[in-house]
Amino acid sequence: MSEKVWSVYLAGEIHSDWRERIEAGAREAGLPVAFTAPVTDHPASDDAGTGTLGPEPVKFWADQMGAGVNAIRTQTMIRDADLLVVRFGDKYRQWNAAFDAGFAAALGTPYVTLHDGELDHALKEVDRAAQATARTPEQVVAVLRYAIRGELPR
Amino acid sequence: MSEKVWSVYLAGEIHSDWRERIEAGAREAGLPVAFTAPVTDHPASDDAGTGTLGPEPVKFWADQMGAGVNAIRTQTMIRDADLLVVRFGDKYRQWNAAFDAGFAAALGTPYVTLHDGELDHALKEVDRAAQATARTPEQVVAVLRYAIRGELPR
Amino acid sequence: MSEKVWSVYLAGEIHSDWRERIEAGAREAGLPVAFTAPVTDHPASDDAGTGTLGPEPVKFWADQMGAGVNAIRTQTMIRDADLLVVRFGDKYRQWNAAFDAGFAAALGTPYVTLHDGELDHALKEVDRAAQATARTPEQVVAVLRYAIRGELPR
Amino acid sequence: MSEKVWSVYLAGEIHSDWRERIEAGAREAGLPVAFTAPVTDHPASDDAGTGTLGPEPVKFWADQMGAGVNAIRTQTMIRDADLLVVRFGDKYRQWNAAFDAGFAAALGTPYVTLHDGELDHALKEVDRAAQATARTPEQVVAVLRYAIRGELPR
Amino acid sequence: MSEKVWSVYLAGEIHSDWRERIEAGAREAGLPVAFTAPVTDHPASDDAGTGTLGPEPVKFWADQMGAGVNAIRTQTMIRDADLLVVRFGDKYRQWNAAFDAGFAAALGTPYVTLHDGELDHALKEVDRAAQATARTPEQVVAVLRYAIRGELPR
Amino acid sequence: MSEKVWSVYLAGEIHSDWRERIEAGAREAGLPVAFTAPVTDHPASDDAGTGTLGPEPVKFWADQMGAGVNAIRTQTMIRDADLLVVRFGDKYRQWNAAFDAGFAAALGTPYVTLHDGELDHALKEVDRAAQATARTPEQVVAVLRYAIRGELPR
Amino acid sequence: MSEKVWSVYLAGEIHSDWRERIEAGAREAGLPVAFTAPVTDHPASDDAGTGTLGPEPVKFWADQMGAGVNAIRTQTMIRDADLLVVRFGDKYRQWNAAFDAGFAAALGTPYVTLHDGELDHALKEVDRAAQATARTPEQVVAVLRYAIRGELPR
Amino acid sequence: MSEKVWSVYLAGEIHSDWRERIEAGAREAGLPVAFTAPVTDHPASDDAGTGTLGPEPVKFWADQMGAGVNAIRTQTMIRDADLLVVRFGDKYRQWNAAFDAGFAAALGTPYVTLHDGELDHALKEVDRAAQATARTPEQVVAVLRYAIRGELPR
Repeated sequence: MSEKVWSVYLAGEIHSDWRERIEAGAREAGLPVAFTAPVTDHPASDDAGTGTLGPEPVKFWADQMGAGVNAIRTQTMIRDADLLVVRFGDKYRQWNAAFDAGFAAALGTPYVTLHDGELDHALKEVDRAAQATARTPEQVVAVLRYAIRGELPR
Repeated sequence: MSEKVWSVYLAGEIHSDWRERIEAGAREAGLPVAFTAPVTDHPASDDAGTGTLGPEPVKFWADQMGAGVNAIRTQTMIRDADLLVVRFGDKYRQWNAAFDAGFAAALGTPYVTLHDGELDHALKEVDRAAQATARTPEQVVAVLRYAIRGELPR
Repeated sequence: MSEKVWSVYLAGEIHSDWRERIEAGAREAGLPVAFTAPVTDHPASDDAGTGTLGPEPVKFWADQMGAGVNAIRTQTMIRDADLLVVRFGDKYRQWNAAFDAGFAAALGTPYVTLHDGELDHALKEVDRAAQATARTPEQVVAVLRYAIRGELPR
Repeated sequence: MSEKVWSVYLAGEIHSDWRERIEAGAREAGLPVAFTAPVTDHPASDDAGTGTLGPEPVKFWADQMGAGVNAIRTQTMIRDADLLVVRFGDKYRQWNAAFDAGFAAALGTPYVTLHDGELDHALKEVDRAAQATARTPEQVVAVLRYAIRGELPR
Repeated sequence: MSEKVWSVYLAGEIHSDWRERIEAGAREAGLPVAFTAPVTDHPASDDAGTGTLGPEPVKFWADQMGAGVNAIRTQTMIRDADLLVVRFGDKYRQWNAAFDAGFAAALGTPYVTLHDGELDHALKEVDRAAQATARTPEQVVAVLRYAIRGELPR
Repeated sequence: MSEKVWSVYLAGEIHSDWRERIEAGAREAGLPVAFTAPVTDHPASDDAGTGTLGPEPVKFWADQMGAGVNAIRTQTMIRDADLLVVRFGDKYRQWNAAFDAGFAAALGTPYVTLHDGELDHALKEVDRAAQATARTPEQVVAVLRYAIRGELPR
Repeated sequence: MSEKVWSVYLAGEIHSDWRERIEAGAREAGLPVAFTAPVTDHPASDDAGTGTLGPEPVKFWADQMGAGVNAIRTQTMIRDADLLVVRFGDKYRQWNAAFDAGFAAALGTPYVTLHDGELDHALKEVDRAAQATARTPEQVVAVLRYAIRGELPR
Repeated sequence: MSEKVWSVYLAGEIHSDWRERIEAGAREAGLPVAFTAPVTDHPASDDAGTGTLGPEPVKFWADQMGAGVNAIRTQTMIRDADLLVVRFGDKYRQWNAAFDAGFAAALGTPYVTLHDGELDHALKEVDRAAQATARTPEQVVAVLRYAIRGELPR
């Protein structure tokens, strides 16, 4: 009988290497996880609408077209996910990360937040609805390993 | 670990080759998509009830029998779908396409509409609940490719 | 103890007096029904977006803005409804009526269609998912009276 | 038969008078709306946990206690709401506003965003899942009036 | 503050006075219950379709029309109900009573069955999914009184 | 990409060979269907509780134990099913078949009924909520073939 | 427009006066709360089955009958509740309190636990899924007052 | 066509070998079951939070961190399960087992309880919502074998 492959969606900040560190850590630990994520190539993400459906001169509508096309990807992946990791960086506002967390909370899908302590107060509602708040990608890997294998770091 | 195969239901117009063009485009792009569709052989679809359950002389009831048998196929496929493409042509009324769009909207399943600009006003409610409105099958393929692979056409 | 007031949403065609006839019939029969409906003033409905949120020169986007504002009304009313009556006239395409029917079907909310026999074949899927197909507003009133009071016309 | 009272939850920014302006506008227009909102007294909101359940010296946990108590209020009100208005101001990060929007989106509850154009790009995902994006409280009142009464401003 | 009025749907057999006995017992006990039921006038129920929508010569389709119209009433009432009482008599097959029980079970709505011991074996699946099996209408009243008031018969 | 295997639950009568005929027909037609069913060995089914959990002298409770154990099987299979076939024979009351139909209807899972014309009137509610009413197992196979392959019998 | 009356279900321990203290505190604070609870008369609760449905000599089955009748009350009240308070005392095992908490958690209904610190470790899972853990009935009243009125104790 | 693998979650007591006995019995019987369970290494389970996310000196919060991390595992497994077995031992309070049972009940997922007769009265509500109450792991295996294969022990 084959082992369950956990589906983990990595939401939020796209300007640091946190996804790579989590994926590398999970690979090293041999965890059966299929990671998914929004498109993290920022220019491609911004052009998701006009690049697929054709030009739109007004920025607001171009953004709306892009957000719709991105949502096909992200909402499908979020609905498929067993768990989300939601990352907030110290730059940018990342409202879509908080949106994804709220979406997951209403679906009853568990999520882990990943951010520095200085954001704690601003993120208290988002953290409260999470199952865990991590400070480092390595802690997220430890949570995944425990959740899937029941093993703690030595 | 195997890649997710996206399930995409192609709803609506059955008198042009739009389904073939989307399927061919997805194949060329190597996208992992399993397409489903209503029965597109028009006479077979019209005989779905009487051809399986026996003759019914009154047209209204024969149609109702057929619609029930077709619904076994279509509602199962729509419930299984990650995404719908809903096509409106310039002939016929295609109320079942709009019905499928409403059904998907209530389920929270994303869909893309595909139609010419002259239908925009009449379809504004159906388009508004969609994640994207495309004009050509090739644009739909571009949306699928972006949603699945995160790649834009060059 | 007060009687339940049934909430009935009247979807579809806005160019004939079918809503008034149903409402008058229900009033005469003393039925406890609260009717709701989309905005049936066609110009107002078309301006729902630009009239509330400000001008938008491009027709497609103006329509999209309007459809969003209309959806606040219609989806709230449909979610509140015990029953929908979905009317298809012989002019226009009324895709939004079919969309509403599909939406109701997915929610498990019963609906009655109201249209002439010449539309039967085109509407067979929409009729099949309905609980009844009526030809006249008076038949709809009879259905309401039976459903609520258990009385048939003499 | 009494008119439906719409339940509208006013989420987000607590440092300007936008709620008062919407409530005043709705009152003037005679709209049947019951507004709800998170606790907008900032110090009270911050003390929601320790002020009810007792002292907690560590800020992170005090915040978590407070977020839990606030969630009793906010999630109950959001689940009861027919519509949300989600306001983003130009200061602070207001991640809880985006969280509420995502929560509403997953429930299928419509919402309207309210923010300046300079936030459009950062809020594109949140706006895309909304039924409307308004710039002023008065526009929100116009949307409410249209949705409830079907009337546009003259 | 006003007391909750329990909504109790009385499903099943229409050839004995069990509904009247339950209603009388609840009235005597002063219980705040609003009872609902299918149309219990057998000929009216059989004519529900043709009496409202017009003649249909083929019995099968006339029955289907009637069942649709009856379902508008019964499914609305069942969805509104806090509790069902499902009565099986010793004559007739009453498959609709069992259908209603299955419908309630899937919705998570509790129900009580009411039938003689000789039907126990045939009804074991239906009884198992019930919260109680009663032999007399008076026992049903006792269950209602306990559930609502917490009082047992002396 | 592998073809979808349809999951079809065969509910109801256990005293004739209708299941075997449907399974044989589907096999001959090469249809990708995984059939499931309640335990059709009548004595085993009656002993499901006492045979697994130990003796119970009182028939009512022994039946209740058995119905619970059977429900683990049947409700799991029904929740997994894409489609149900619900068979009513001319003997016995088969209330559990009608219960299963109601359960499926509330879940939104389509089903086909299979019975002789003489049961039409008694089964009108159960048939009305079905997508089709068949008279023979061969008709059910034709429906399956059409729903899955889009092919009609020649 | 009338104020929302919050529905609060008081689950768990029935051997101390905690319910009375919460109800008195809410009354003093003038909070619009309708409290509901299981039957707290222990002998009546134990006789809920046999007292309504007739004698059953075997204790296990008498208990099962009683638990079914009690569930009609408790599950209806829990489904109606905006909030649960779940009390664990230091005697008895109160597994039904933990069951109710799990039931509420799966429904997405918020709850507050009420227990002494010595039970913290044993109740950690139940507390984690709660929105707050209180030590005294007065703290629960403070939480209710804050959630409903936004006021903190001075 | 491959056989369905049943997913069975083994909830509750972690101090005896009941899980091993059920797994061994299922293996011997050749049943297609994938068993899941909470982490049963008690010290690891207690350190689930601090061992993955870092030290927390206050026991209450360390427990809350641990319960969150454990919930990622358990709620995912419970949502995936076809069936739960919920074991109550004679020591400890095992409130989380009762919590899991309530969670499953609200989801509509069937479960079997496993405990000695002396706990019957205290567990009557939990047993009533179960599909079966077993006394030994071997009885649970018999139930699984019947549910999956339709076979009774000889």
